[in-house]
Amino acid sequence: MTKPRIVIVGAGFGGLAAAAGLERAAVDVTVVDRQNHHLFQPLLYQVATAGLSPADIAWPVRSLLRRQKNARVLMGEVTAVNPADKIVVVDGRPVPYDGLVLATGATHGYFGNDEWAAHAPGLKTLDDATAIRRRLLLAFERAEMTSDPEDCARLLTIVIVGGGPTGVELAGAIAELARRTLARDFRAIDPARTRVVLVEAGPRVLANFPESLSAYTARALARLGVELRLGQPVTRCDAGGVAIGEARLSSATVIWAAGVAASPAARWLGIASDRAGRVRVTDRLQPAGHEDIWIIGDTAFATNPGGVPQPGIAPVAKQQGAYVARAIRARFEGGAPPPPFVYRDRGLLATIGRTAAVIAWRRLRLRGWLAWWIWGAAHVYFLVSLRNRLIVVTQWLWAYLLWERGARLITGRKD
Amino acid sequence: MTKPRIVIVGAGFGGLAAAAGLERAAVDVTVVDRQNHHLFQPLLYQVATAGLSPADIAWPVRSLLRRQKNARVLMGEVTAVNPADKIVVVDGRPVPYDGLVLATGATHGYFGNDEWAAHAPGLKTLDDATAIRRRLLLAFERAEMTSDPEDCARLLTIVIVGGGPTGVELAGAIAELARRTLARDFRAIDPARTRVVLVEAGPRVLANFPESLSAYTARALARLGVELRLGQPVTRCDAGGVAIGEARLSSATVIWAAGVAASPAARWLGIASDRAGRVRVTDRLQPAGHEDIWIIGDTAFATNPGGVPQPGIAPVAKQQGAYVARAIRARFEGGAPPPPFVYRDRGLLATIGRTAAVIAWRRLRLRGWLAWWIWGAAHVYFLVSLRNRLIVVTQWLWAYLLWERGARLITGRKD
Repeated sequence: MTKPRIVIVGAGFGGLAAAAGLERAAVDVTVVDRQNHHLFQPLLYQVATAGLSPADIAWPVRSLLRRQKNARVLMGEVTAVNPADKIVVVDGRPVPYDGLVLATGATHGYFGNDEWAAHAPGLKTLDDATAIRRRLLLAFERAEMTSDPEDCARLLTIVIVGGGPTGVELAGAIAELARRTLARDFRAIDPARTRVVLVEAGPRVLANFPESLSAYTARALARLGVELRLGQPVTRCDAGGVAIGEARLSSATVIWAAGVAASPAARWLGIASDRAGRVRVTDRLQPAGHEDIWIIGDTAFATNPGGVPQPGIAPVAKQQGAYVARAIRARFEGGAPPPPFVYRDRGLLATIGRTAAVIAWRRLRLRGWLAWWIWGAAHVYFLVSLRNRLIVVTQWLWAYLLWERGARLITGRKD
Repeated sequence: MTKPRIVIVGAGFGGLAAAAGLERAAVDVTVVDRQNHHLFQPLLYQVATAGLSPADIAWPVRSLLRRQKNARVLMGEVTAVNPADKIVVVDGRPVPYDGLVLATGATHGYFGNDEWAAHAPGLKTLDDATAIRRRLLLAFERAEMTSDPEDCARLLTIVIVGGGPTGVELAGAIAELARRTLARDFRAIDPARTRVVLVEAGPRVLANFPESLSAYTARALARLGVELRLGQPVTRCDAGGVAIGEARLSSATVIWAAGVAASPAARWLGIASDRAGRVRVTDRLQPAGHEDIWIIGDTAFATNPGGVPQPGIAPVAKQQGAYVARAIRARFEGGAPPPPFVYRDRGLLATIGRTAAVIAWRRLRLRGWLAWWIWGAAHVYFLVSLRNRLIVVTQWLWAYLLWERGARLITGRKD
């Protein structure tokens, strides 16, 4: 008899946790991802801001699953799911399943204004990160070349849209890059005079965090020289910059860190999604009416008892992945199904800049240098291999001691 | 009185050595490069074969010249030189000079068959390296997906054209990548059965080296499983593979490591170039009839006394750069001009694979593990910063101990 075939779409934190949980199960696991690598997304902003190299925070999915004999990896794009025939279509080929885990993550959404994407790229993949790095560094190079003061001001204005963790981390890192790392390297311009503007439609940054930490974050950003525009929605992005409400802001570099839009999983299944494109799942992480499908991570909208939404962060995806592995074993190997899934809070972390970070965990509120060191240690700890830990620590030590950034490369085609 | 303006085009080994030699001169130095980074080209093949990250072997030109107060950096493309008016055109803007150093390096040439470039990319820039890495790694991913044995064979055949140091180093690294690093990571294919074919039109590999070392290199490549085709010119490259003489070789991944073609410096100056596009220079590294222009590195064809051509390697470019700095100081500050330039042999090095390298220095011939360790130590020594040395050594140790490669990322747009 052949073993049950479990197909996991997406090799992010959730998908890999599900695969790992099935290591000793009597099933055949297929992990499908359109990239060949698992990405440590929490540090992606450091690639975009020239602090780390892509390979420092990414690992081939194949290597990660090398020793798991019941798993194979397909690099390819899922274009459709057929729940009636239990088939996933990968690059045009049918891949049959007995159990399906959708862990396809989220991408950035432009609230229906997809034409903004060309002017305000988002940050989800390594290619996004190196493209943003190129734009950022090219702006300074062009400013150094220009003799037109207006052009120069436009080039030295950087706008980040979205005051969540990614937006805050980008704004802080870009301010430090401009004011410290680049400051001594130019002759015609003074990069320290760069305007870094963080625009957030809501009333505060880090809306998921306790208010006291949002307030601290706003102060810490201001200390770094970041201009904060709260309660001001971006109404337009074009080649010249952005419109914030009625006002125009001239900028050559706009980065989009708002509006998460989930993957097309809902469309594949022909079921409803919420405004952010996520699929509502039961407390067993399944879409209603699909006994052999599980949806986890940023693709799912799941709530804890009491209706508290589970946030779109790595610990949630990991716990959900481990949970669905147990549920799949129960279903296909027999045994009692696990009780409904409850997310156990692992805390919220965000970093603003050197010696400034915030941590909220249960009743604990941490901010400042201690939070920053804990943030760094936690992120190094979660990197996959000792080699990557050594390399990231080396890069960080250098940055800490010398304000240098190791990956100030302009690569890829010019815009 | 304004200081003499020295423009250096190209921030490779030659251009940077010239700039450094002018640090204490009473001149204004402008370094122009179309990239923002200096590249340590001898290790570029390791980026192409997933061993190192781009940032490990590249540094912003601005950082390197930060402390040199008389130097500025322009990132831009030179499109013309006007020797009569002493003007270099950078991105459409005139940049006047009193002395000009052309150190623009070489690119790969296809012997007039430029349409081959799309099928057989060459290796000169970081973007070339990540594009080759993508092609290489994608070939294995596609082979794992295909069910057609012929297609699979084509995908698992990798052809390197050109048996110089770059071709040898690529062939050895790719053979090791396939046979060891990737061997355990696939389920449907056996990467160890990959065909790696090195094609060289001449009678031996490493034609610049002593014959005994060429013979050793051929044996070492064979031991790694590389198929050597000597004395067989490639007569065609297309989407299906290559033609070698009359025979076809079906391959999805062809890499071009032959046919150096110099930059358009000769065209800019309206003077003759040799078959490889290089400009013949006097023993003072100047094109005949141009008193205020110097040409160095791969852009120049220079000979030692007796007519021995100076090879296209980093030590030649560095010595030439230091020499023209002295010549420029003599010319613009007064004093006796230096005697004609003579290249002092610093040896020839090439590596084939683990514990296999060759070194020729004067009468010394080294090969095998000692040469390999010397090669590694020399390359680490020449990296610019301590941080890069630490990171490269970490990556190499890992590769040495575990056969892992740290940068197995498929990035960039798919072909």
